[in-house]
Amino acid sequence: MPNPTAAILIIGDEILSGRTREGNAHFLASKLVEHGIDCREIRVIPDDHAGIIEAVRALSKRFDHVFTSGGIGPTHDDITADAVAEAMGVGLDVRDDARALLAKHYAARDTEFTAARLRMARIPDGATLIDNPVSVAPGFSCDNVHVMAGVPNIFQAMVTGLLPRLTGGAPVISRNWQVMEAESTVADELRAIAGQFGDLSFGSYPFVQEGRYGTNLVVRGQEPAQVEAGLGALKSAFPEGQ
Amino acid sequence: MPNPTAAILIIGDEILSGRTREGNAHFLASKLVEHGIDCREIRVIPDDHAGIIEAVRALSKRFDHVFTSGGIGPTHDDITADAVAEAMGVGLDVRDDARALLAKHYAARDTEFTAARLRMARIPDGATLIDNPVSVAPGFSCDNVHVMAGVPNIFQAMVTGLLPRLTGGAPVISRNWQVMEAESTVADELRAIAGQFGDLSFGSYPFVQEGRYGTNLVVRGQEPAQVEAGLGALKSAFPEGQ
Repeated sequence: MPNPTAAILIIGDEILSGRTREGNAHFLASKLVEHGIDCREIRVIPDDHAGIIEAVRALSKRFDHVFTSGGIGPTHDDITADAVAEAMGVGLDVRDDARALLAKHYAARDTEFTAARLRMARIPDGATLIDNPVSVAPGFSCDNVHVMAGVPNIFQAMVTGLLPRLTGGAPVISRNWQVMEAESTVADELRAIAGQFGDLSFGSYPFVQEGRYGTNLVVRGQEPAQVEAGLGALKSAFPEGQ
Repeated sequence: MPNPTAAILIIGDEILSGRTREGNAHFLASKLVEHGIDCREIRVIPDDHAGIIEAVRALSKRFDHVFTSGGIGPTHDDITADAVAEAMGVGLDVRDDARALLAKHYAARDTEFTAARLRMARIPDGATLIDNPVSVAPGFSCDNVHVMAGVPNIFQAMVTGLLPRLTGGAPVISRNWQVMEAESTVADELRAIAGQFGDLSFGSYPFVQEGRYGTNLVVRGQEPAQVEAGLGALKSAFPEGQ
């Protein structure tokens, strides 16, 4: 059976303006590989209501899972929950369990539970909460759309809690063989090897190290023995590698 | 007149698998802001012919410019040029000027000009070459789609050569005001300020520093005097910030 598929949707003007270098997609992409979910697309879009709705609808139809990051805080530009609810055709309101979590958190800190903070208890109808062990305000799964915070340590904690709930497939295994040759030097042999192993995928990633060209050859697949055979072919073709 | 719009399309399995942390989009996004081009979307997709065609068609219709990264090297998985040509409805063949550049480069290094290397001289009909001062093999602009290499130092060199050719608009100016308060504490006042300045956009980016919550408040706009007025409002509302 093929692995479940996924897209990651990053919501935030600060990424598109180059102000912030995105890291949540990179973190989640590695976790999805380990969990046997194939990440097929990463998309970064602005804090724009209509744009979020359009992207959530398109990606949630196309892939088994959509993971979002950003826009669920207490401020006026936190519009992800509203847009996801509208995209999925469900209502959105303050929910008792989410409100109770926040009320307890603020009471323990002697902090006022303001209207702005109450925004973070607004959950789409029928959604399942995603635990936030860092700062309490929860994420949620609305059908196959998993909505999480953009702050990296909160996002990572939410992912760690969420993933075990999702059915994964066979993890993709990858092995690397580094050769100190230009990509164009290894291209012909690499193509021949790729042609011999139809169930594996072969990639080549050139780099420059101390003024010398090198290439990382990567073989990926789901069957460990096949991947090792592919790696063996790379080693035979490029014995100087490591 | 509104600024030209753009999308960045990153092509590469190695990003989606979490193997490589993407940096080209972040680099280009900052350069686009300086050049007055509004980056509206970043998309990362696999090395897949049909998928590249679909994304190039969708994005090139929707935005004034599309910038791609990756998949124009000499190996079998370098399929971007083929897919872009097909997406834009033009032919693709080895072009004399691109071949001459590569032939001279390899001759000077006493390196064989193999069939794999000749692949890098395949250019869509009617495209304009993008200079590659690092390793010669050119990128190209095919109508409003600008195709560049994925290796970071080559990508950056290509962007630096390309951008002055593209008409920009007014750069977006942003100013930052950092307060050591939780985002939920500043939310109400920030919303009120945002309501007063309709031509500016205000964002809030929470962080944790040495165990304390803080928030970066960012005001963005195209008119320097307006942006300064917005910053002034933030300073008055949160005098403890910096």
